[in-house]
Amino acid sequence: MEQEEKEFFMKEAIKEAQKAYDKKEVPIGAVVVCNGEIIGRGHNLREMEQDATLHAEIKAIRQANQHKKSWRLEDCELFVTLEPCPMCSGAILLARLKKVTFGAFDPKAGTCGTFMNLVQDERFNHQAAVESGVLEEECTVLLQSFFKELRQRNKLRKQLVKAEANKGI
Amino acid sequence: MEQEEKEFFMKEAIKEAQKAYDKKEVPIGAVVVCNGEIIGRGHNLREMEQDATLHAEIKAIRQANQHKKSWRLEDCELFVTLEPCPMCSGAILLARLKKVTFGAFDPKAGTCGTFMNLVQDERFNHQAAVESGVLEEECTVLLQSFFKELRQRNKLRKQLVKAEANKGI
Repeated sequence: MEQEEKEFFMKEAIKEAQKAYDKKEVPIGAVVVCNGEIIGRGHNLREMEQDATLHAEIKAIRQANQHKKSWRLEDCELFVTLEPCPMCSGAILLARLKKVTFGAFDPKAGTCGTFMNLVQDERFNHQAAVESGVLEEECTVLLQSFFKELRQRNKLRKQLVKAEANKGI
Repeated sequence: MEQEEKEFFMKEAIKEAQKAYDKKEVPIGAVVVCNGEIIGRGHNLREMEQDATLHAEIKAIRQANQHKKSWRLEDCELFVTLEPCPMCSGAILLARLKKVTFGAFDPKAGTCGTFMNLVQDERFNHQAAVESGVLEEECTVLLQSFFKELRQRNKLRKQLVKAEANKGI
């Protein structure tokens, strides 16, 4: 896949991440691509749905499974804005995805090479190719803006609680 | 939790595994328990639903999330007939489950202590307690019977194909 094409699909994953951002969810988005066509899309919906498993990658993989009427995605690739966690790395292996391309690195829980490399551990019965850092800056900036806003909201909330408490004195 | 109670919940997980067996799915079952009550149940449905993520644990965790209207399951435990894979171990961490108890060991992909220990890696922001081997024999026998039947079915299928081919000569 050419660089231009990779960036096109990562931009589609970023569009998904933006949907999460707009819903006050941690902005992570993913798409599954098969023969140049997007067959699965997803964004993080953990808070809205109160479901621990609703990561962008899981949504996108499940949609791709439905599209292909098969749990096997050997001829498909995943594009995701943040390096996948252990759950999503496990799902990538289970779905037999041939490649995962991610934007931002996750030093705390990224298991596609940064914190650990689950998807290329040769002891499992499948491995996926990995490409990292595609549109890294855009993906990182989106996450940083989200957490900056979240900190500001939390700070304001604390000030409000303090002001309410002082009123009661 | 007393041994008797642990075996009671593992038997409930085995009932789920039996449902998978009856549907010709690899027989794995799970339940999520909160304050002595089962709030999530699941069995493997990968083939029937053609969904790579539909492991017993994921189904049980999602149902528990729905029951509690929360993605956080800090006060809950998971009972599962086979040692969880990387995807399910990741989901256990994401849902903040306090403990996982499994029956049979999985030397090929079990990541709760056998092949790897993802759920107790202190570098992640959560760890779960692990207990293994509860009703191990019952859980193992169910899996062994399934794969024995599967091999027999595949052998018969091959013989049938060969017989059909010979007819054509």
